[in-house]
Amino acid sequence: MNSNYKFVVIGAGNLGTRMSIALDSVGHKALQNINRSEEKGKMLAEKLGAAFYHEVNIHKDADIVFIATNDDSIPGIISEISTFDGLIVHVSGSTPISVFESYVRNYGVFYPLQSFTADVEVDFKNIPLLIEASDPVNLAILNQTANSISENVFVMDSDTRLKCHLAAVIAANFSNHFIALGEAMLKEANLPKDIIHPLIDEMFLKIRKYGAYKAQTGPARRNDIVILEKHKEALKNKPGLQNLYTFVSDSIINSYRKPNSKDG
Amino acid sequence: MNSNYKFVVIGAGNLGTRMSIALDSVGHKALQNINRSEEKGKMLAEKLGAAFYHEVNIHKDADIVFIATNDDSIPGIISEISTFDGLIVHVSGSTPISVFESYVRNYGVFYPLQSFTADVEVDFKNIPLLIEASDPVNLAILNQTANSISENVFVMDSDTRLKCHLAAVIAANFSNHFIALGEAMLKEANLPKDIIHPLIDEMFLKIRKYGAYKAQTGPARRNDIVILEKHKEALKNKPGLQNLYTFVSDSIINSYRKPNSKDG
Repeated sequence: MNSNYKFVVIGAGNLGTRMSIALDSVGHKALQNINRSEEKGKMLAEKLGAAFYHEVNIHKDADIVFIATNDDSIPGIISEISTFDGLIVHVSGSTPISVFESYVRNYGVFYPLQSFTADVEVDFKNIPLLIEASDPVNLAILNQTANSISENVFVMDSDTRLKCHLAAVIAANFSNHFIALGEAMLKEANLPKDIIHPLIDEMFLKIRKYGAYKAQTGPARRNDIVILEKHKEALKNKPGLQNLYTFVSDSIINSYRKPNSKDG
Repeated sequence: MNSNYKFVVIGAGNLGTRMSIALDSVGHKALQNINRSEEKGKMLAEKLGAAFYHEVNIHKDADIVFIATNDDSIPGIISEISTFDGLIVHVSGSTPISVFESYVRNYGVFYPLQSFTADVEVDFKNIPLLIEASDPVNLAILNQTANSISENVFVMDSDTRLKCHLAAVIAANFSNHFIALGEAMLKEANLPKDIIHPLIDEMFLKIRKYGAYKAQTGPARRNDIVILEKHKEALKNKPGLQNLYTFVSDSIINSYRKPNSKDG
Protein backbone atom coordinates (compact mmCIF):
# COMPACT_ATOMS: atom_id res chain seq x y z
CA MET A 1 0.00 0.00 0.00
CA ASN A 2 1.29 3.39 -0.96
CA SER A 3 1.15 5.55 2.13
CA ASN A 4 2.22 8.76 0.42
CA TYR A 5 -0.67 11.05 -0.38
CA LYS A 6 -1.13 14.01 -2.67
CA PHE A 7 -2.45 16.88 -0.60
CA VAL A 8 -3.77 20.41 -0.90
CA VAL A 9 -3.67 22.95 1.93
CA ILE A 10 -6.15 25.82 2.04
CA GLY A 11 -4.61 28.59 4.15
CA ALA A 12 -1.00 29.71 4.53
CA GLY A 13 -1.07 30.83 8.18
CA ASN A 14 1.28 29.46 10.82
CA LEU A 15 -0.49 26.10 11.11
CA GLY A 16 -1.03 25.62 7.36
CA THR A 17 2.61 26.44 6.71
CA ARG A 18 4.09 24.22 9.43
CA MET A 19 1.81 21.30 8.56
CA SER A 20 2.54 21.52 4.84
CA ILE A 21 6.27 21.46 5.52
CA ALA A 22 5.93 18.50 7.92
CA LEU A 23 3.84 16.46 5.43
CA ASP A 24 6.22 17.29 2.57
CA SER A 25 9.25 16.30 4.65
CA VAL A 26 8.06 12.70 5.06
CA GLY A 27 7.22 12.19 1.40
CA HIS A 28 3.65 13.36 0.92
CA LYS A 29 3.24 15.52 -2.16
CA ALA A 30 1.84 19.07 -1.97
CA LEU A 31 -0.13 19.81 -5.14
CA GLN A 32 -1.47 23.25 -4.27
CA ASN A 33 -1.54 25.93 -1.67
CA ILE A 34 -4.73 27.93 -1.83
CA ASN A 35 -4.73 31.24 -0.01
CA ARG A 36 -6.48 34.59 -0.11
CA SER A 37 -3.31 36.58 0.42
CA GLU A 38 -0.89 35.97 -2.42
CA GLU A 39 2.38 36.72 -0.67
CA LYS A 40 2.36 33.98 1.98
CA GLY A 41 0.67 31.37 -0.20
CA LYS A 42 3.09 31.82 -3.11
CA MET A 43 6.12 31.61 -0.85
CA LEU A 44 4.84 28.40 0.70
CA ALA A 45 3.84 26.85 -2.64
CA GLU A 46 7.26 27.65 -4.08
CA LYS A 47 9.01 26.07 -1.11
CA LEU A 48 6.99 22.87 -1.63
CA GLY A 49 7.18 22.77 -5.44
CA ALA A 50 3.39 23.14 -5.49
CA ALA A 51 1.06 25.45 -7.39
CA PHE A 52 -0.34 28.59 -5.79
CA TYR A 53 -4.06 29.19 -6.29
CA HIS A 54 -5.98 32.24 -5.29
CA GLU A 55 -9.35 30.62 -5.96
CA VAL A 56 -10.68 27.57 -4.14
CA ASN A 57 -10.29 25.20 -7.08
CA ILE A 58 -9.06 21.77 -5.99
CA HIS A 59 -6.76 19.70 -8.22
CA LYS A 60 -8.58 16.52 -9.27
CA ASP A 61 -5.62 14.27 -8.29
CA ALA A 62 -5.63 15.39 -4.66
CA ASP A 63 -6.14 12.66 -2.04
CA ILE A 64 -6.60 14.94 0.98
CA VAL A 65 -7.57 18.59 1.32
CA PHE A 66 -6.63 20.30 4.59
CA ILE A 67 -8.70 23.36 5.51
CA ALA A 68 -6.27 25.36 7.66
CA THR A 69 -8.10 28.67 7.79
CA ASN A 70 -9.60 30.37 10.83
CA ASP A 71 -12.62 28.59 12.27
CA ASP A 72 -15.20 31.07 10.95
CA SER A 73 -14.22 30.42 7.33
CA ILE A 74 -14.56 26.62 7.49
CA PRO A 75 -18.30 26.27 6.63
CA GLY A 76 -18.02 28.62 3.62
CA ILE A 77 -15.03 26.76 2.23
CA ILE A 78 -16.73 23.38 2.65
CA SER A 79 -19.68 24.55 0.58
CA GLU A 80 -17.31 25.93 -2.09
CA ILE A 81 -15.47 22.60 -2.51
CA SER A 82 -18.41 20.25 -2.04
CA THR A 83 -18.04 18.86 -5.57
CA PHE A 84 -14.55 17.52 -4.72
CA ASP A 85 -14.88 13.81 -4.09
CA GLY A 86 -11.69 13.09 -2.07
CA LEU A 87 -11.10 13.39 1.66
CA ILE A 88 -11.59 16.86 3.16
CA VAL A 89 -10.46 17.63 6.71
CA HIS A 90 -10.26 20.67 8.92
CA VAL A 91 -7.55 21.25 11.52
CA SER A 92 -9.59 23.01 14.22
CA GLY A 93 -9.79 21.97 17.87
CA SER A 94 -13.15 23.60 18.52
CA THR A 95 -15.10 22.90 15.31
CA PRO A 96 -17.12 19.67 15.45
CA ILE A 97 -16.91 17.14 12.63
CA SER A 98 -20.64 17.73 12.03
CA VAL A 99 -19.74 20.92 10.13
CA PHE A 100 -19.15 18.68 7.09
CA GLU A 101 -22.41 16.74 7.30
CA SER A 102 -24.79 16.97 4.31
CA TYR A 103 -22.13 18.90 2.30
CA VAL A 104 -19.51 16.25 1.54
CA ARG A 105 -19.14 12.48 1.75
CA ASN A 106 -15.51 11.90 2.81
CA TYR A 107 -14.38 14.04 5.68
CA GLY A 108 -12.53 14.25 8.94
CA VAL A 109 -10.58 16.29 11.48
CA PHE A 110 -6.80 16.49 11.81
CA TYR A 111 -6.03 18.68 14.82
CA PRO A 112 -2.50 19.26 16.13
CA LEU A 113 -2.60 20.21 19.83
CA GLN A 114 0.06 22.88 19.57
CA SER A 115 0.33 26.60 18.98
CA PHE A 116 2.33 27.60 15.95
CA THR A 117 4.45 30.66 15.30
CA ALA A 118 5.43 31.72 11.80
CA ASP A 119 9.18 31.81 12.28
CA VAL A 120 9.58 28.98 14.80
CA GLU A 121 10.19 25.55 13.31
CA VAL A 122 8.52 22.71 15.13
CA ASP A 123 9.17 19.00 15.27
CA PHE A 124 5.81 17.35 14.65
CA LYS A 125 7.09 14.07 16.07
CA ASN A 126 6.03 15.04 19.61
CA ILE A 127 2.93 17.02 18.77
CA PRO A 128 -0.31 15.21 19.71
CA LEU A 129 -2.53 14.83 16.64
CA LEU A 130 -6.23 14.36 17.41
CA ILE A 131 -8.02 12.75 14.49
CA GLU A 132 -11.59 11.83 13.63
CA ALA A 133 -13.26 10.76 10.35
CA SER A 134 -16.61 10.18 8.65
CA ASP A 135 -16.00 6.42 8.36
CA PRO A 136 -13.38 3.71 9.01
CA VAL A 137 -11.79 3.97 5.55
CA ASN A 138 -11.14 7.68 5.89
CA LEU A 139 -10.04 7.21 9.50
CA ALA A 140 -7.43 4.71 8.32
CA ILE A 141 -6.10 7.25 5.79
CA LEU A 142 -5.89 9.97 8.44
CA ASN A 143 -4.33 7.59 10.92
CA GLN A 144 -1.64 6.66 8.42
CA THR A 145 -1.01 10.28 7.55
CA ALA A 146 -0.91 11.36 11.19
CA ASN A 147 1.46 8.55 12.15
CA SER A 148 3.78 9.49 9.31
CA ILE A 149 4.57 12.83 11.01
CA SER A 150 3.79 12.27 14.73
CA GLU A 151 4.35 9.58 17.34
CA ASN A 152 1.47 10.93 19.37
CA VAL A 153 -1.79 10.20 17.51
CA PHE A 154 -5.19 10.02 19.23
CA VAL A 155 -8.51 9.07 17.67
CA MET A 156 -10.98 11.37 19.42
CA ASP A 157 -14.60 12.49 18.97
CA SER A 158 -15.51 16.18 18.59
CA ASP A 159 -16.82 16.60 22.10
CA THR A 160 -13.65 15.20 23.70
CA ARG A 161 -11.47 17.20 21.30
CA LEU A 162 -13.24 20.41 22.39
CA LYS A 163 -12.53 19.54 26.04
CA CYS A 164 -8.92 18.86 25.15
CA HIS A 165 -8.64 22.21 23.38
CA LEU A 166 -10.27 23.96 26.32
CA ALA A 167 -7.87 22.26 28.77
CA ALA A 168 -4.97 23.36 26.56
CA VAL A 169 -6.19 26.97 26.50
CA ILE A 170 -6.57 27.03 30.27
CA ALA A 171 -3.22 25.33 30.91
CA ALA A 172 -1.07 27.05 28.30
CA ASN A 173 -2.66 30.34 27.21
CA PHE A 174 -3.86 31.32 30.67
CA SER A 175 -0.50 30.41 32.26
CA ASN A 176 1.26 32.49 29.66
CA HIS A 177 -0.99 35.44 30.53
CA PHE A 178 -0.10 35.26 34.24
CA ILE A 179 3.58 35.09 33.41
CA ALA A 180 3.02 38.17 31.21
CA LEU A 181 1.30 39.96 34.10
CA GLY A 182 4.20 39.02 36.41
CA GLU A 183 6.73 40.25 33.86
CA ALA A 184 4.81 43.54 33.52
CA MET A 185 4.91 44.06 37.30
CA LEU A 186 8.67 43.47 37.33
CA LYS A 187 9.17 45.91 34.47
CA GLU A 188 7.18 48.51 36.38
CA ALA A 189 9.49 47.99 39.39
CA ASN A 190 12.53 48.30 37.08
CA LEU A 191 13.50 44.68 37.64
CA PRO A 192 14.65 42.30 34.89
CA LYS A 193 11.90 39.91 33.82
CA ASP A 194 14.24 36.94 33.90
CA ILE A 195 14.50 37.27 37.70
CA ILE A 196 11.48 34.92 37.89
CA HIS A 197 12.74 32.42 35.30
CA PRO A 198 14.57 30.12 37.76
CA LEU A 199 11.34 29.90 39.74
CA ILE A 200 9.37 29.04 36.62
CA ASP A 201 11.94 26.42 35.59
CA GLU A 202 11.63 24.81 39.01
CA MET A 203 7.82 24.90 38.74
CA PHE A 204 8.02 22.99 35.46
CA LEU A 205 10.33 20.35 36.84
CA LYS A 206 7.84 19.82 39.67
CA ILE A 207 4.86 19.69 37.34
CA ARG A 208 6.59 17.00 35.29
CA LYS A 209 7.49 15.08 38.42
CA TYR A 210 4.31 15.37 40.50
CA GLY A 211 1.63 16.86 38.24
CA ALA A 212 0.52 20.47 38.74
CA TYR A 213 -2.07 19.72 41.43
CA LYS A 214 0.53 18.33 43.83
CA ALA A 215 3.19 20.84 42.72
CA GLN A 216 1.13 23.86 43.80
CA THR A 217 2.91 26.22 46.22
CA GLY A 218 2.40 29.82 47.32
CA PRO A 219 0.34 31.84 49.80
CA ALA A 220 -3.07 30.74 48.45
CA ARG A 221 -2.03 27.07 48.59
CA ARG A 222 -1.10 27.55 52.26
CA ASN A 223 -4.14 29.78 52.77
CA ASP A 224 -1.73 32.33 54.24
CA ILE A 225 -4.17 35.18 54.95
CA VAL A 226 -1.44 37.60 56.09
CA ILE A 227 0.47 37.45 52.80
CA LEU A 228 -2.70 37.36 50.69
CA GLU A 229 -3.81 40.61 52.35
CA LYS A 230 -0.39 42.23 51.87
CA HIS A 231 -0.51 41.38 48.17
CA LYS A 232 -4.04 42.73 47.76
CA GLU A 233 -2.98 45.91 49.56
CA ALA A 234 0.01 46.24 47.19
CA LEU A 235 -2.46 46.11 44.27
CA LYS A 236 -4.90 48.67 45.67
CA ASN A 237 -4.22 51.11 42.82
CA LYS A 238 -4.84 48.43 40.18
CA PRO A 239 -8.42 47.29 40.77
CA GLY A 240 -8.48 45.00 37.71
CA LEU A 241 -5.38 43.14 38.77
CA GLN A 242 -6.47 43.14 42.42
CA ASN A 243 -9.77 41.48 41.46
CA LEU A 244 -7.94 38.93 39.34
CA TYR A 245 -5.53 38.22 42.21
CA THR A 246 -8.45 37.62 44.58
CA PHE A 247 -10.37 35.51 42.07
CA VAL A 248 -7.47 33.20 41.26
CA SER A 249 -6.31 32.95 44.89
CA ASP A 250 -9.84 31.95 45.91
CA SER A 251 -9.88 29.37 43.13
CA ILE A 252 -6.62 27.87 44.46
CA ILE A 253 -7.93 27.87 48.04
CA ASN A 254 -11.15 26.16 46.92
CA SER A 255 -9.28 23.53 44.90
CA TYR A 256 -7.54 22.32 48.04
CA ARG A 257 -10.44 22.81 50.46
CA LYS A 258 -12.50 20.28 48.49
CA PRO A 259 -9.93 17.79 47.25
CA ASN A 260 -12.42 15.96 45.04
CA SER A 261 -13.57 19.03 43.16
CA LYS A 262 -11.31 21.20 41.06
CA ASP A 263 -14.14 23.31 39.69
CA GLY A 264 -13.00 26.93 39.80
CA MET B 1 39.25 38.85 55.34
CA ASN B 2 37.63 35.64 56.43
CA SER B 3 34.43 35.27 54.45
CA ASN B 4 33.23 32.14 56.20
CA TYR B 5 30.60 32.78 58.83
CA LYS B 6 29.23 30.78 61.74
CA PHE B 7 25.49 30.63 61.34
CA VAL B 8 22.34 29.47 63.11
CA VAL B 9 19.11 28.62 61.32
CA ILE B 10 15.78 28.84 63.13
CA GLY B 11 13.33 26.57 61.33
CA ALA B 12 13.85 23.25 59.56
CA GLY B 13 11.25 23.55 56.82
CA ASN B 14 12.06 23.25 53.12
CA LEU B 15 13.71 26.67 52.87
CA GLY B 16 15.63 26.41 56.18
CA THR B 17 16.89 22.97 55.17
CA ARG B 18 17.92 23.86 51.61
CA MET B 19 19.59 27.09 52.68
CA SER B 20 21.50 25.46 55.54
CA ILE B 21 22.85 22.83 53.17
CA ALA B 22 23.83 25.46 50.57
CA LEU B 23 25.67 27.62 53.15
CA ASP B 24 27.41 24.58 54.62
CA SER B 25 28.51 23.37 51.18
CA VAL B 26 30.55 26.53 50.50
CA GLY B 27 32.32 26.55 53.85
CA HIS B 28 30.10 28.46 56.26
CA LYS B 29 29.74 26.68 59.60
CA ALA B 30 26.33 25.72 60.99
CA LEU B 31 26.40 25.98 64.79
CA GLN B 32 22.79 25.18 65.55
CA ASN B 33 19.47 24.30 64.08
CA ILE B 34 16.61 25.51 66.23
CA ASN B 35 13.22 24.03 65.54
CA ARG B 36 9.95 23.35 67.31
CA SER B 37 9.55 19.87 65.83
CA GLU B 38 12.43 17.66 66.93
CA GLU B 39 12.45 15.15 64.09
CA LYS B 40 13.26 17.48 61.17
CA GLY B 41 15.56 19.77 63.16
CA LYS B 42 17.64 16.92 64.57
CA MET B 43 18.05 15.30 61.17
CA LEU B 44 19.23 18.56 59.65
CA ALA B 45 21.56 19.41 62.57
CA GLU B 46 23.11 15.95 62.33
CA LYS B 47 23.68 16.32 58.60
CA LEU B 48 25.48 19.62 59.20
CA GLY B 49 27.45 18.56 62.28
CA ALA B 50 25.55 21.19 64.24
CA ALA B 51 23.66 21.14 67.54
CA PHE B 52 19.90 20.75 67.64
CA TYR B 53 18.06 23.10 69.99
CA HIS B 54 14.42 23.01 70.81
CA GLU B 55 14.50 26.39 72.56
CA VAL B 56 15.40 29.67 70.92
CA ASN B 57 18.77 30.03 72.61
CA ILE B 58 21.41 31.41 70.24
CA HIS B 59 25.06 30.30 70.48
CA LYS B 60 27.21 33.31 71.47
CA ASP B 61 29.75 32.63 68.67
CA ALA B 62 27.18 32.90 65.90
CA ASP B 63 27.78 35.59 63.23
CA ILE B 64 24.42 35.37 61.50
CA VAL B 65 21.05 34.03 62.61
CA PHE B 66 18.59 33.13 59.83
CA ILE B 67 14.91 33.14 60.81
CA ALA B 68 13.43 30.65 58.36
CA THR B 69 10.02 30.11 59.93
CA ASN B 70 6.63 31.03 58.53
CA ASP B 71 5.99 34.77 58.31
CA ASP B 72 3.61 34.92 61.27
CA SER B 73 6.24 33.64 63.69
CA ILE B 74 8.93 36.19 62.76
CA PRO B 75 7.97 39.01 65.19
CA GLY B 76 7.71 36.65 68.16
CA ILE B 77 11.11 35.10 67.45
CA ILE B 78 12.75 38.52 67.06
CA SER B 79 11.56 39.55 70.48
CA GLU B 80 12.81 36.23 71.94
CA ILE B 81 16.35 36.70 70.57
CA SER B 82 16.64 40.46 70.99
CA THR B 83 19.55 40.10 73.43
CA PHE B 84 21.68 38.45 70.72
CA ASP B 85 24.09 41.07 69.43
CA GLY B 86 25.08 39.58 66.03
CA LEU B 87 23.33 39.90 62.68
CA ILE B 88 19.76 38.61 62.53
CA VAL B 89 17.97 38.19 59.20
CA HIS B 90 14.67 36.79 58.02
CA VAL B 91 14.18 35.04 54.67
CA SER B 92 10.65 36.24 53.82
CA GLY B 93 9.63 37.95 50.59
CA SER B 94 6.61 39.72 52.05
CA THR B 95 7.83 40.79 55.51
CA PRO B 96 9.35 44.30 55.53
CA ILE B 97 12.71 44.92 57.17
CA SER B 98 10.93 47.25 59.59
CA VAL B 99 9.79 44.18 61.55
CA PHE B 100 13.22 44.29 63.29
CA GLU B 101 13.20 47.99 64.17
CA SER B 102 13.37 48.89 67.86
CA TYR B 103 14.01 45.21 68.79
CA VAL B 104 17.54 44.58 67.51
CA ARG B 105 20.47 46.61 66.19
CA ASN B 106 22.01 44.44 63.43
CA TYR B 107 19.48 43.03 61.03
CA GLY B 108 18.60 42.33 57.45
CA VAL B 109 16.67 40.28 54.90
CA PHE B 110 18.01 37.37 52.87
CA TYR B 111 15.22 36.25 50.52
CA PRO B 112 15.68 33.53 47.89
CA LEU B 113 13.16 33.99 45.06
CA GLN B 114 12.39 30.29 44.70
CA SER B 115 9.93 27.74 46.03
CA PHE B 116 11.48 24.84 47.86
CA THR B 117 10.39 21.24 48.16
CA ALA B 118 11.67 18.97 50.92
CA ASP B 119 13.01 16.17 48.75
CA VAL B 120 14.13 18.18 45.71
CA GLU B 121 17.73 19.39 45.82
CA VAL B 122 18.32 22.82 44.35
CA ASP B 123 21.37 24.54 42.98
CA PHE B 124 21.46 27.94 44.69
CA LYS B 125 23.85 29.25 42.04
CA ASN B 126 20.98 30.39 39.80
CA ILE B 127 18.51 31.39 42.50
CA PRO B 128 18.03 35.17 42.79
CA LEU B 129 18.83 36.30 46.35
CA LEU B 130 17.20 39.60 47.34
CA ILE B 131 19.06 41.19 50.26
CA GLU B 132 18.62 44.26 52.45
CA ALA B 133 20.27 45.32 55.73
CA SER B 134 20.07 47.80 58.60
CA ASP B 135 23.35 49.48 57.61
CA PRO B 136 26.27 49.24 55.13
CA VAL B 137 28.40 46.98 57.36
CA ASN B 138 25.67 44.37 57.69
CA LEU B 139 24.80 44.74 54.01
CA ALA B 140 28.41 43.93 53.13
CA ILE B 141 28.24 40.78 55.26
CA LEU B 142 24.99 39.66 53.62
CA ASN B 143 26.30 40.53 50.17
CA GLN B 144 29.38 38.38 50.76
CA THR B 145 27.30 35.52 52.12
CA ALA B 146 24.78 35.74 49.27
CA ASN B 147 27.50 35.83 46.61
CA SER B 148 29.13 32.78 48.14
CA ILE B 149 26.11 30.64 47.19
CA SER B 150 24.44 32.51 44.29
CA GLU B 151 25.50 34.35 41.14
CA ASN B 152 22.25 36.26 41.15
CA VAL B 153 22.27 38.71 44.09
CA PHE B 154 20.12 41.85 44.21
CA VAL B 155 20.15 44.56 46.88
CA MET B 156 16.49 45.53 47.16
CA ASP B 157 14.28 47.52 49.55
CA SER B 158 11.25 45.94 51.23
CA ASP B 159 8.67 47.58 48.99
CA THR B 160 10.36 46.40 45.79
CA ARG B 161 10.90 42.93 47.29
CA LEU B 162 7.16 42.66 48.01
CA LYS B 163 6.41 43.57 44.39
CA CYS B 164 8.91 40.98 43.23
CA HIS B 165 7.32 38.33 45.44
CA LEU B 166 3.86 39.30 44.19
CA ALA B 167 5.04 39.08 40.57
CA ALA B 168 6.49 35.65 41.32
CA VAL B 169 3.23 34.44 42.87
CA ILE B 170 1.23 35.66 39.87
CA ALA B 171 3.68 34.26 37.32
CA ALA B 172 4.54 30.93 38.93
CA ASN B 173 1.84 29.93 41.44
CA PHE B 174 -1.08 31.15 39.34
CA SER B 175 0.33 29.52 36.18
CA ASN B 176 0.72 26.28 38.07
CA HIS B 177 -2.92 26.49 39.14
CA PHE B 178 -4.17 26.85 35.56
CA ILE B 179 -2.04 23.92 34.47
CA ALA B 180 -3.59 21.96 37.37
CA LEU B 181 -7.10 22.95 36.19
CA GLY B 182 -6.20 21.87 32.64
CA GLU B 183 -4.85 18.56 33.89
CA ALA B 184 -8.03 18.00 35.94
CA MET B 185 -10.19 18.58 32.83
CA LEU B 186 -8.12 16.07 30.87
CA LYS B 187 -8.42 13.50 33.66
CA GLU B 188 -12.18 13.97 33.65
CA ALA B 189 -12.20 13.28 29.89
CA ASN B 190 -10.03 10.19 30.47
CA LEU B 191 -7.11 11.73 28.62
CA PRO B 192 -3.48 11.56 29.78
CA LYS B 193 -2.33 14.80 31.40
CA ASP B 194 0.92 14.78 29.45
CA ILE B 195 -1.00 15.35 26.22
CA ILE B 196 -0.61 19.10 26.90
CA HIS B 197 3.08 18.96 27.84
CA PRO B 198 4.46 19.53 24.31
CA LEU B 199 2.28 22.65 24.12
CA ILE B 200 3.57 23.88 27.48
CA ASP B 201 7.17 23.19 26.46
CA GLU B 202 6.65 25.24 23.32
CA MET B 203 5.07 28.03 25.38
CA PHE B 204 8.17 28.18 27.57
CA LEU B 205 10.54 28.31 24.64
CA LYS B 206 8.53 31.25 23.29
CA ILE B 207 8.44 33.04 26.64
CA ARG B 208 12.21 32.77 26.86
CA LYS B 209 12.60 34.01 23.32
CA TYR B 210 10.01 36.79 23.14
CA GLY B 211 8.79 37.42 26.69
CA ALA B 212 5.29 36.26 27.71
CA TYR B 213 3.47 39.36 26.49
CA LYS B 214 4.51 38.79 22.88
CA ALA B 215 4.28 35.00 23.20
CA GLN B 216 0.56 35.07 24.03
CA THR B 217 -1.63 32.92 21.75
CA GLY B 218 -5.13 31.45 21.97
CA PRO B 219 -8.75 32.48 21.36
CA ALA B 220 -8.73 35.38 23.86
CA ARG B 221 -5.56 36.80 22.29
CA ARG B 222 -7.27 36.72 18.89
CA ASN B 223 -10.53 37.89 20.46
CA ASP B 224 -12.15 34.89 18.74
CA ILE B 225 -15.71 35.25 20.03
CA VAL B 226 -16.94 32.02 18.40
CA ILE B 227 -14.41 29.81 20.21
CA LEU B 228 -14.72 31.76 23.49
CA GLU B 229 -18.48 31.12 23.44
CA LYS B 230 -18.00 27.42 22.63
CA HIS B 231 -15.66 27.07 25.58
CA LYS B 232 -18.02 28.87 27.96
CA GLU B 233 -20.84 26.64 26.74
CA ALA B 234 -18.68 23.55 27.40
CA LEU B 235 -18.26 24.78 31.00
CA LYS B 236 -21.95 25.48 31.63
CA ASN B 237 -22.16 22.81 34.33
CA LYS B 238 -19.13 24.20 36.15
CA PRO B 239 -20.08 27.76 37.06
CA GLY B 240 -16.92 28.39 39.09
CA LEU B 241 -14.64 27.38 36.25
CA GLN B 242 -16.84 29.14 33.69
CA ASN B 243 -16.53 32.42 35.65
CA LEU B 244 -12.79 31.97 35.92
CA TYR B 245 -12.58 31.28 32.16
CA THR B 246 -14.50 34.46 31.40
CA PHE B 247 -12.53 36.55 33.90
CA VAL B 248 -9.11 35.47 32.62
CA SER B 249 -10.14 35.66 28.95
CA ASP B 250 -11.39 39.22 29.50
CA SER B 251 -8.12 40.07 31.21
CA ILE B 252 -6.19 38.79 28.17
CA ILE B 253 -8.47 40.70 25.76
CA ASN B 254 -8.01 43.90 27.81
CA SER B 255 -4.24 43.49 27.96
CA TYR B 256 -4.02 43.65 24.17
CA ARG B 257 -6.79 46.17 23.64
CA LYS B 258 -4.84 48.75 25.63
CA PRO B 259 -1.24 47.90 24.79
CA ASN B 260 0.15 50.35 27.38
CA SER B 261 -1.79 48.95 30.30
CA LYS B 262 -1.46 45.43 31.57
CA ASP B 263 -3.64 46.01 34.61
CA GLY B 264 -5.98 43.03 34.92
